[in-house]
Amino acid sequence: MKIKNKLKKIKNLLKANKQFSEYSIKEIEDVKYKFYKRKSTRLNLLITSVNEEDIFAGIKTAISFSSNLAKFMNCDIRIIVMDKPIRGKLVLKEYTLANGSSEISKVVVDLSKRDDVLSVSENDIFVGTMWHTLYAFRNVFSEFTLNFKKNPTLIYLIQDYEAGFFPWSSRYLLAESTYANKKNKTIAVFNSMSLYNFFKLRGYSFYKECFFSPRLNNDLKKILLRANETELKRKKQILIYGRPSKNRNVFSLILMALDKWYSENKLAREWQVLSVGESFGTIKCPSGLEVKSLGKLTIEEYANEMLQSQIGISLMASPHPSYPPLEMASFGLKVITNNFANKDLGKFSTNIYSLKTVTIEELSKKIVELSSQSDCGILMKTGEYLDDDNLQWNSIYKEIRETLETGN
Amino acid sequence: MKIKNKLKKIKNLLKANKQFSEYSIKEIEDVKYKFYKRKSTRLNLLITSVNEEDIFAGIKTAISFSSNLAKFMNCDIRIIVMDKPIRGKLVLKEYTLANGSSEISKVVVDLSKRDDVLSVSENDIFVGTMWHTLYAFRNVFSEFTLNFKKNPTLIYLIQDYEAGFFPWSSRYLLAESTYANKKNKTIAVFNSMSLYNFFKLRGYSFYKECFFSPRLNNDLKKILLRANETELKRKKQILIYGRPSKNRNVFSLILMALDKWYSENKLAREWQVLSVGESFGTIKCPSGLEVKSLGKLTIEEYANEMLQSQIGISLMASPHPSYPPLEMASFGLKVITNNFANKDLGKFSTNIYSLKTVTIEELSKKIVELSSQSDCGILMKTGEYLDDDNLQWNSIYKEIRETLETGN
Repeated sequence: MKIKNKLKKIKNLLKANKQFSEYSIKEIEDVKYKFYKRKSTRLNLLITSVNEEDIFAGIKTAISFSSNLAKFMNCDIRIIVMDKPIRGKLVLKEYTLANGSSEISKVVVDLSKRDDVLSVSENDIFVGTMWHTLYAFRNVFSEFTLNFKKNPTLIYLIQDYEAGFFPWSSRYLLAESTYANKKNKTIAVFNSMSLYNFFKLRGYSFYKECFFSPRLNNDLKKILLRANETELKRKKQILIYGRPSKNRNVFSLILMALDKWYSENKLAREWQVLSVGESFGTIKCPSGLEVKSLGKLTIEEYANEMLQSQIGISLMASPHPSYPPLEMASFGLKVITNNFANKDLGKFSTNIYSLKTVTIEELSKKIVELSSQSDCGILMKTGEYLDDDNLQWNSIYKEIRETLETGN
Repeated sequence: MKIKNKLKKIKNLLKANKQFSEYSIKEIEDVKYKFYKRKSTRLNLLITSVNEEDIFAGIKTAISFSSNLAKFMNCDIRIIVMDKPIRGKLVLKEYTLANGSSEISKVVVDLSKRDDVLSVSENDIFVGTMWHTLYAFRNVFSEFTLNFKKNPTLIYLIQDYEAGFFPWSSRYLLAESTYANKKNKTIAVFNSMSLYNFFKLRGYSFYKECFFSPRLNNDLKKILLRANETELKRKKQILIYGRPSKNRNVFSLILMALDKWYSENKLAREWQVLSVGESFGTIKCPSGLEVKSLGKLTIEEYANEMLQSQIGISLMASPHPSYPPLEMASFGLKVITNNFANKDLGKFSTNIYSLKTVTIEELSKKIVELSSQSDCGILMKTGEYLDDDNLQWNSIYKEIRETLETGN
């Protein structure tokens, strides 16, 4: 009996013991590599995934920015997948799946499981994307410097302040450290001026810094330019950008504000609320409002819904503007979005109403205000926003090439 | 068969429908209240919980700050619990549990379920603590202004930048809104100068602002003053402040850095690593290092461990210094902690080594450095840090009283 009790105690103690793996941060695991000689320059894009279900704006931009840069510099390109194992056939049609020692260009190497060894030469240059794609290369970069007696060339494509994806925590500090790292001569390329300014306001600086601005998707542009203002029949319809799984799109706050608006305003019953982004069926709010999700639409369906709606709601808890509020504004919706730190989208278009402070009350009040107005927004058929991405990228490419050639 | 299939489809569709409650943010639910006449001033402390298991430094400070303020102003006090239902006997001995219309002083009212109606008079003043304790009173405050033709007096006891407890999200924005709110004449009282400076750097301002600095716990002070430097026998022992459940104490990062140090340094085997804070049994790291948690200790046990250890590690991803690194430094440990935004604890004591950028490599390097030194830190038996809390609080109380009396 005594022994039984003792055993029980020991068992409980063992149970209480936590495992190291419960706390270790897997995505920063070191990359295995070997150095070798290779004559020609090769651009290495470090990316989280190339699987179809993961390819949203961020990854799409990273791939086209990098492949166009490789073309511009007339050099080889290698895409290195750091996070999600490649599933099924490669969706990047011009690329071939290969291992870490492959010598051909336009290859994709799967390092997600860190079980392959990457060949690295002094003529390899790197484009980092998500914070941990760079963090996992820390050892490669520091050994690179020792081995080749020069710093590796790093281009950091910064599309958000990614520390903000986390509460103040281990990951927050590690993500932040990739911005504060001064060891390598990093060329930082920011997606949007407001994001660039945010970094400057927070005191970060890089060896070189440049930014580009969001541009309207080509397929949307075609539809927009064809649309005829006078023929549009906009319904009493509110289109929200609803992504419950993405914290920064603040779905809860939008939902609670819509519920408040609907419960306090009789006229709200004349309106319909549709959501694009993620699928969540139909949510019945306590007020009686039903928010129906259309899920991820085709470009044509998305454009159609925009052309039929009067009001758009798309929030983003980040200094990055995000694409949907700009798209909605260019398609003539009156769009409610939010300021964040230095970000103010009100300057982008008169169709945009940007909340200074976001509370359920303020957002609800703005919906009341816009839904009681009878006029609609105006289609935006001109302006820089309709330019091609490459127009801005080319000047950035020139700066990168110059930095590489002169070392300045 | 066809009907069966249709039913199946409908069932699946219903399953896909998400519930409003999955997304609604419960802790900000409005408080029920009624206005009435009451002659004397009453201080209302809005707090999340008074249950023993929740009473850590933050709640302890809020209760003693408020009850001392009520004494100073010679007014009634009412503690309003906003979050966790009161369990069992009240641990606050001088207080009585009562309902929202009770007229006596020193009562605790449980509004956690929002099923009681709070009586509010124009002579009620409010001390807010966690962001949502104030957010849930928004309706009370705006109706207060309409009803009594004056703004309510709010004291906001700010002990961290609580938006940082969340990733950029709905809760982040709502927490942030409580700092940006200019509607009420808020007297902000900051716990620590570095936290106050953080708010100033981020551009926040309040009607009145003051701060106090962390002071050594009285019981620890007694032990520290009794301790004899020359008699101490410090072991090769590292004491970490380990709280896996608190993001801001960055447990993962500490654990991974210790593992790296242990795997790369033969001399590390001479050292023992103990953790105070939360219980997690013993964690076996891949390097062979065992990190043993002592859990939450008594003051005496905690002091003893500090007096027997050479190195302390206590990180805090926040502009607030937190108490453990200061306690460890005063007890003569060499303490590794971290800078955060404007925070730099290096100024507090020569026993403190504050990392500018926190990475696993930097932390590990600092452990290597300190563990290879043979000298120990020095007991801190003098200085402001050993003063009594009330010394600083009294000058804050005077300012609050003046503001209330003159309206300036």
